[in-house]
Amino acid sequence: MQSAPLSALMTALALILYLVMFCAVAAARGRFKVPAPATTGHATFERIYRAQQNTLEQLILFLPALWLFALFVSDRIGAALGLVWLLGRILYAAGYYRDAARRGPGFVIAAIAAVTLLIGGLAGILRTLL
Amino acid sequence: MQSAPLSALMTALALILYLVMFCAVAAARGRFKVPAPATTGHATFERIYRAQQNTLEQLILFLPALWLFALFVSDRIGAALGLVWLLGRILYAAGYYRDAARRGPGFVIAAIAAVTLLIGGLAGILRTLL
Amino acid sequence: MQSAPLSALMTALALILYLVMFCAVAAARGRFKVPAPATTGHATFERIYRAQQNTLEQLILFLPALWLFALFVSDRIGAALGLVWLLGRILYAAGYYRDAARRGPGFVIAAIAAVTLLIGGLAGILRTLL
Repeated sequence: MQSAPLSALMTALALILYLVMFCAVAAARGRFKVPAPATTGHATFERIYRAQQNTLEQLILFLPALWLFALFVSDRIGAALGLVWLLGRILYAAGYYRDAARRGPGFVIAAIAAVTLLIGGLAGILRTLL
Repeated sequence: MQSAPLSALMTALALILYLVMFCAVAAARGRFKVPAPATTGHATFERIYRAQQNTLEQLILFLPALWLFALFVSDRIGAALGLVWLLGRILYAAGYYRDAARRGPGFVIAAIAAVTLLIGGLAGILRTLL
Repeated sequence: MQSAPLSALMTALALILYLVMFCAVAAARGRFKVPAPATTGHATFERIYRAQQNTLEQLILFLPALWLFALFVSDRIGAALGLVWLLGRILYAAGYYRDAARRGPGFVIAAIAAVTLLIGGLAGILRTLL
């Protein structure tokens, strides 16, 4: 992993985004009066919560795909796709926070980046194996 | 990680399964009319959603355990256990989609594989440390 | 990763904690009669379930941050922070299981450890890149 510092940088930045979204949920619990363990009860809280949950769901795909790509294909291209993913997820969160209908474009941009990393990583692994 | 290409292959295949299950949730949102951010409202949607959530919950255990095993014990045996996990999770999803009561066997098969990877990985780490 | 056996050990121990919490949810489903796919219906079940979900949400931050720190800064210090995280999460679970209001101290201890790993890891990556 030390051999892929740019992908490591994108990993750290993706985790910082996730941390910020996690703090947004904690703040929204207080502001919209949705005490734990509840996860429903106010429409705005639910959007902020679902945006964080969806980022979690996407991170578990993105991070391993990024590292498969970085190690079996290219750190530089992997990190560039990682940056696209990151920008897509920022767009997604900013959209979802205002209106569930506006979460689409950012989601699609990030999803294309993640799937490209996964397919590219798989190709790199198969090239190594065959 | 480049030294464990078979475990890398299993990682990529596990992520593809997760991606397929994620798409199934997105499709079910439309088919059963459960718009985001809701996650309840139709029994079939809820099963498809819970199956994906449970796969997420298991991936966070499986992927690190697979890599601890691959790097501290054996790539070949780790990947074989990874294949068992993958087949178990496919069985789990296929069962859960039809009936919550049919999610048991696949879950147990995958859980045994994951726990074996974790315990074996821990043993390998302790052998390295001691 | 083989070059960071202490962080590998903390990874395995964190996964074992997660596994125990996962089993607690499965047991609570039976005891409090909350059959899958439901995730609500009994206050104690909901706390046990949310404690596990929150641990999942934190693991996706903790594990990559631990490894960025281990590989770009120090395995030994990273593993020490990992131990703090682990003890914090045990305190969190023990508190949350009894009363949602008692989940605070453990959460904060673990969060400080995770954020320290992330910021330290980012600093180590930037030092490598610059």
